[in-house]
Amino acid sequence: MQRNADRTRTRILAAATEEFAARGIAGARVNRIAEVAGCNKAMLYAYFGSKDGLFDAVYTAAVDTYLAEVGFDTADLPGYAGRVFDYFEEHPEHQRLNIWYRLERPDGTALEAIVAVNKSRLGDLDQAQRSGVVPGNFTPIELLALLQAIATSWSSMNPEYGASAPSRASRREAVVEAVRRLLSS
Amino acid sequence: MQRNADRTRTRILAAATEEFAARGIAGARVNRIAEVAGCNKAMLYAYFGSKDGLFDAVYTAAVDTYLAEVGFDTADLPGYAGRVFDYFEEHPEHQRLNIWYRLERPDGTALEAIVAVNKSRLGDLDQAQRSGVVPGNFTPIELLALLQAIATSWSSMNPEYGASAPSRASRREAVVEAVRRLLSS
Repeated sequence: MQRNADRTRTRILAAATEEFAARGIAGARVNRIAEVAGCNKAMLYAYFGSKDGLFDAVYTAAVDTYLAEVGFDTADLPGYAGRVFDYFEEHPEHQRLNIWYRLERPDGTALEAIVAVNKSRLGDLDQAQRSGVVPGNFTPIELLALLQAIATSWSSMNPEYGASAPSRASRREAVVEAVRRLLSS
Repeated sequence: MQRNADRTRTRILAAATEEFAARGIAGARVNRIAEVAGCNKAMLYAYFGSKDGLFDAVYTAAVDTYLAEVGFDTADLPGYAGRVFDYFEEHPEHQRLNIWYRLERPDGTALEAIVAVNKSRLGDLDQAQRSGVVPGNFTPIELLALLQAIATSWSSMNPEYGASAPSRASRREAVVEAVRRLLSS
């Protein structure tokens, strides 16, 4: 029984990830998610409480996977930016979840997973600056904002650029080089 | 009569800007826009054709205003980034329109205004690189992508940062300094 319950939960999360990435929180339809997951709406609400609760579960799972995959290494921030770039190239649906989240929850409803990791990274950057591993040109929070913006620079471009986009390898190298320059003394 | 028609059109655009910025294309309600603008739906459709046509008019007007205000100057790209930063600090609704546009029209439906200005800027950057005004570390399209990402780095952050955001002046200086570093030889 437990394994069946886990499988149902996993199927709901997969269907909900696709639906939320395509349509956002307001636009997502719980009926459609239940149908794709092969369960009924009552079961979905039993697991996740509400559509907002389901979005939080989907987004938290996506953030956890992202954090585990890209890691964070103050001794090699250009390499970190390259991994973030790779992650969003390979998971465009995660980038869409990020953007819906910012649009539809502009005032925060902060996710614990993000709050905790930001705090930890800001502490790491502060420590790395104190010990001279990272130059002190920017405050930790400004550096983190710039790193994330540069690493996702292409995915946040206007769709009008699409046709003339350089190769993935070339865009990746531009991202890594931009972070190198950010840190040069 | 002509002046009345212009005023109606202006009122519809203002109401639609607010509605689209808050709710996006799919979420916007034409009824609500007409009500706020003090006209009826038939009149709105007579002016703009459809909800999508109205969004295009709103977004094109926003892009035109933005382009006129920030300009583009290959001889001072850090200054340009600072002006882009200022513009989106002062017009958060425009940044929301940008993001909805990317989410809801991921495959482009390219806006002529953007296509034309991108082409012109890429030409300017290419020329500035050939004449040595701008270093050739990045291709024009990569440089433009990085400039825009850095200039809007703060507005694209996760809402979890909000409470600990540095002052506007400090964030602006970080943006300008990041672009200076991008261009250093």
